[in-house]
Amino acid sequence: MNEPVNRIEPRSGVALELAKGETLIVSDPDGGQVSDLVCYGADDVGEVISNGRTFDYEETIALTAGNRLWSNRSNPMLTIVEDTVGKHDFLLTPCSVDTFRHFYPDKPEHRGCFGNLQAALEPYGIGPDAIPTAFNLFMNVPVDGRSGGIEVKPPLSRPGDRIAMRAEMDMIVGLTACSAYASNGGSFKPIDYAVQPA
Amino acid sequence: MNEPVNRIEPRSGVALELAKGETLIVSDPDGGQVSDLVCYGADDVGEVISNGRTFDYEETIALTAGNRLWSNRSNPMLTIVEDTVGKHDFLLTPCSVDTFRHFYPDKPEHRGCFGNLQAALEPYGIGPDAIPTAFNLFMNVPVDGRSGGIEVKPPLSRPGDRIAMRAEMDMIVGLTACSAYASNGGSFKPIDYAVQPA
Repeated sequence: MNEPVNRIEPRSGVALELAKGETLIVSDPDGGQVSDLVCYGADDVGEVISNGRTFDYEETIALTAGNRLWSNRSNPMLTIVEDTVGKHDFLLTPCSVDTFRHFYPDKPEHRGCFGNLQAALEPYGIGPDAIPTAFNLFMNVPVDGRSGGIEVKPPLSRPGDRIAMRAEMDMIVGLTACSAYASNGGSFKPIDYAVQPA
Repeated sequence: MNEPVNRIEPRSGVALELAKGETLIVSDPDGGQVSDLVCYGADDVGEVISNGRTFDYEETIALTAGNRLWSNRSNPMLTIVEDTVGKHDFLLTPCSVDTFRHFYPDKPEHRGCFGNLQAALEPYGIGPDAIPTAFNLFMNVPVDGRSGGIEVKPPLSRPGDRIAMRAEMDMIVGLTACSAYASNGGSFKPIDYAVQPA
């Protein structure tokens, strides 16, 4: 990346503003690390990224370069313009204190991506109930087409892998370095991002 | 069903209140007809059914008898107690005027399940942006586990098939007889429902 690179420390999250035409580049510096992404219309945060609308219009649950991510109002929000991994998840919600209690009862509680997104988005007037199913970058969740069963496996991303997404409207983005054990192959690593001008 | 049966006319929708412990029975009288279901906490409509939380906790996208449907706040909302079909969809959002323009540019526009749910839920103070990805009863959307591709096929439901769901909290339910061509095998039929006491 030629643009300044920002680092999201392990198990944390940020919010940022993205103008229409700018490209958000998210990279996995160490490999094997998930980053949860949510986004909202800057003019009206009632407009939000929607997995259901995206699956409907893109006719696939496997989103990669060339696919668009759609809002609940049927507008394209982001276009994936580059993707060196090709495996992301748009089925699962951000990990949270509740998912930690459910899946890791013996581990210390953590507010997870959900709590990190909630804290990062609060200054924009976006409350916790408005956090939808996230687009989980680098998250590897194979679906068994016959049984419907899903499994959370370690990401396929290697050090330096990245995904670039062009904003199709002015927006507020929430972005994390994911906090859950299974999603990240058992260790917590940072996530880097940069914003390329239009 | 021994309880009074209510009919949802083709391409329309209703809202109803369901108390904790009551069971909602939705049946497909003619067969081959989809019904979109959404639900909200009666005490606070900010609590809403969530496909992502459900997939996470149930570890499958194929939901049937024994599975629970979860809210965005990690509470179980409905438990599926009977299911004579075994094939429903929780990936796609309700059809809407925008999806009609996209998928059926040559057909007359229709407000779709989205517009029907919006009208039915408005008296409860639930606005259109709060309509999430629905649990689409009898909707048949196979997923190709390798490519991720999805396809909307005719429902597998035959006349009289039904699904019964027990409420795990007091809630407001939105329910439709779906308006889209592909989901319903090209024709629009009614949906019946009844509420069984706790």
